[in-house]
Amino acid sequence: MMGGDHGLKVTVPAVKIALSRHSDVKLILVGDEAQMRPWLKKNRLLEHPRLEIQHASEIVEMGESPSGALRNKKDSSMRVAINTVKEGRSQACVSAGNTGALMATARFVLKMLPGVDRPAIVYAIPTLDHETKKYSSVYMLDLGANIDCTEQHLFQFGVMGSVLSRAVNGIENPRVALLNIGVEEIKGHQVIQNAAKLLSESKLVNYTGFVEGNDIFRNRADVIVCDGFIGNVALKTIEGVVKFVAQTFKISIHKHIFNKILGLLCLPVLSDVRKVFDMRQYNGATFIGLNGVVIKSHGSALSVPFATAISQAVREVKEGVLDQVRDSIGSVLVQHEG
Amino acid sequence: MMGGDHGLKVTVPAVKIALSRHSDVKLILVGDEAQMRPWLKKNRLLEHPRLEIQHASEIVEMGESPSGALRNKKDSSMRVAINTVKEGRSQACVSAGNTGALMATARFVLKMLPGVDRPAIVYAIPTLDHETKKYSSVYMLDLGANIDCTEQHLFQFGVMGSVLSRAVNGIENPRVALLNIGVEEIKGHQVIQNAAKLLSESKLVNYTGFVEGNDIFRNRADVIVCDGFIGNVALKTIEGVVKFVAQTFKISIHKHIFNKILGLLCLPVLSDVRKVFDMRQYNGATFIGLNGVVIKSHGSALSVPFATAISQAVREVKEGVLDQVRDSIGSVLVQHEG
Repeated sequence: MMGGDHGLKVTVPAVKIALSRHSDVKLILVGDEAQMRPWLKKNRLLEHPRLEIQHASEIVEMGESPSGALRNKKDSSMRVAINTVKEGRSQACVSAGNTGALMATARFVLKMLPGVDRPAIVYAIPTLDHETKKYSSVYMLDLGANIDCTEQHLFQFGVMGSVLSRAVNGIENPRVALLNIGVEEIKGHQVIQNAAKLLSESKLVNYTGFVEGNDIFRNRADVIVCDGFIGNVALKTIEGVVKFVAQTFKISIHKHIFNKILGLLCLPVLSDVRKVFDMRQYNGATFIGLNGVVIKSHGSALSVPFATAISQAVREVKEGVLDQVRDSIGSVLVQHEG
Repeated sequence: MMGGDHGLKVTVPAVKIALSRHSDVKLILVGDEAQMRPWLKKNRLLEHPRLEIQHASEIVEMGESPSGALRNKKDSSMRVAINTVKEGRSQACVSAGNTGALMATARFVLKMLPGVDRPAIVYAIPTLDHETKKYSSVYMLDLGANIDCTEQHLFQFGVMGSVLSRAVNGIENPRVALLNIGVEEIKGHQVIQNAAKLLSESKLVNYTGFVEGNDIFRNRADVIVCDGFIGNVALKTIEGVVKFVAQTFKISIHKHIFNKILGLLCLPVLSDVRKVFDMRQYNGATFIGLNGVVIKSHGSALSVPFATAISQAVREVKEGVLDQVRDSIGSVLVQHEG
């Protein structure tokens, strides 16, 4: 409840939205009870039958180091929330807090799924098939959990992404690609070359080859694998371009369209463009590879997007994604090792 | 003349545009003479007094490996064109050909500037200051020449970018930043941490710290330094997002605006957005650090953008950018070593 750029101001109204969206869901609100109560009262949630308050005396700050949080904040809202998953009191944890600390804490408390060396951050990026004009999405991973990946890590990301794509999106034989740059023959790229070999030799993954940055949005793959540094830069670059284009629009509309009534005609078009990248639709990254469901909301998310992240957790739990991923990865990796 | 996705179909009309734009410029057209002649005739350029034809019997293919091109294509248009720079017959080489081969050949033929270990690909990315609403640009490097950079390489990129920003854009004390991801404490990132140390300790560079992917477009730096793998992924991701947004627009306009007259009202706005990323304005990446001016046009560029790349070469030559970069880098590196 305490995480993100806005904390309770956003999370409490989001809880209200989530409760009305999901009539069969119960929420455990983890955070500083004294701080939460006034916000809950203001939103008329104090005596709600499907809410439980779990006090946590500490908060992990947004700039805090993951190892510091892990070592020193044993009663943080983040740690206590993840503990509820570990203890079986909850089926998923949703947080807008410090990404590094959330990942480190989740990894420490929940551990990995059998056969997985590293967890990864996965996010669905919108795609558009230029020929059929159909929108879809691609799972990209890792988006920031690991920056020093070996070929084995990248291979496992491919397997996990493939399983997720099959389990959540119902794609039978997901196309798995590796993010690379266009130059064919490069020194120093041994890790990606080796990962390509591992993926292409595995009969359990439908590896389709390399893609470049501009291919991300073109429905050339269902899963794109990269190390967390590259993935994080790519994700934030996308965010930056979208903001840049939106701002350029605003400025241009002010310049050209004096008549506001005419300006309004452009609004549905603008809104279509925004919707595609809108956090209200897409907010919520999955931490995959962990022995539990952990969903990370964007730190700057407002109430509706934060509620969307909660909805994603609900969906993953209801569809039994964790079990499917566990079973599939277990068997995939056992077969791979055999 | 033979490079890029379109070859002579694009380069010959571009030559015509460049000749009319720059009345004091002479162009040496390097390529297969027999193939060039019909195109030159068609464009009424055969007897032009400011054109010279330089035959080259081979072509470097777009998919060819840099080392293969260097070893086996000694009479390629690319190699011969770079030779004219080396021989002092020309002051700059412009090509839309195979990037890796162009860089490898330029490096082999022209060598590095004194004190530079690695050349880099630099490109100006548009930026927008959200407060002042002013557009500007940031030099980003490296965008694909090197993928295994040491801290010394990144440091030198910072110095070269700084000099370029000062020489071309007249910025007295350019802000130099390193591209990183948000997580503060990460293992495996020693190279970037060490580069930050080198840059911050040097009094000759105005190092301002780390930026993230979403900061690229926000005028938070005049120069952004990264290794070529990251830079290439970021650049191509930008390209991908812009195309995605443009397509979404087209689809949305068809959906909403039945009346084409009303649709036309959106066009100036659309055109403003496009212009910002338009290759007609921005085409032409500089290969910096080489002992000669080499400009790389986008492979997919049409005639007007290709002419823009030629114009950039003309501007760099007229402003004596190479000498300024050579002098400044020499003195900067000497001072640094001292």
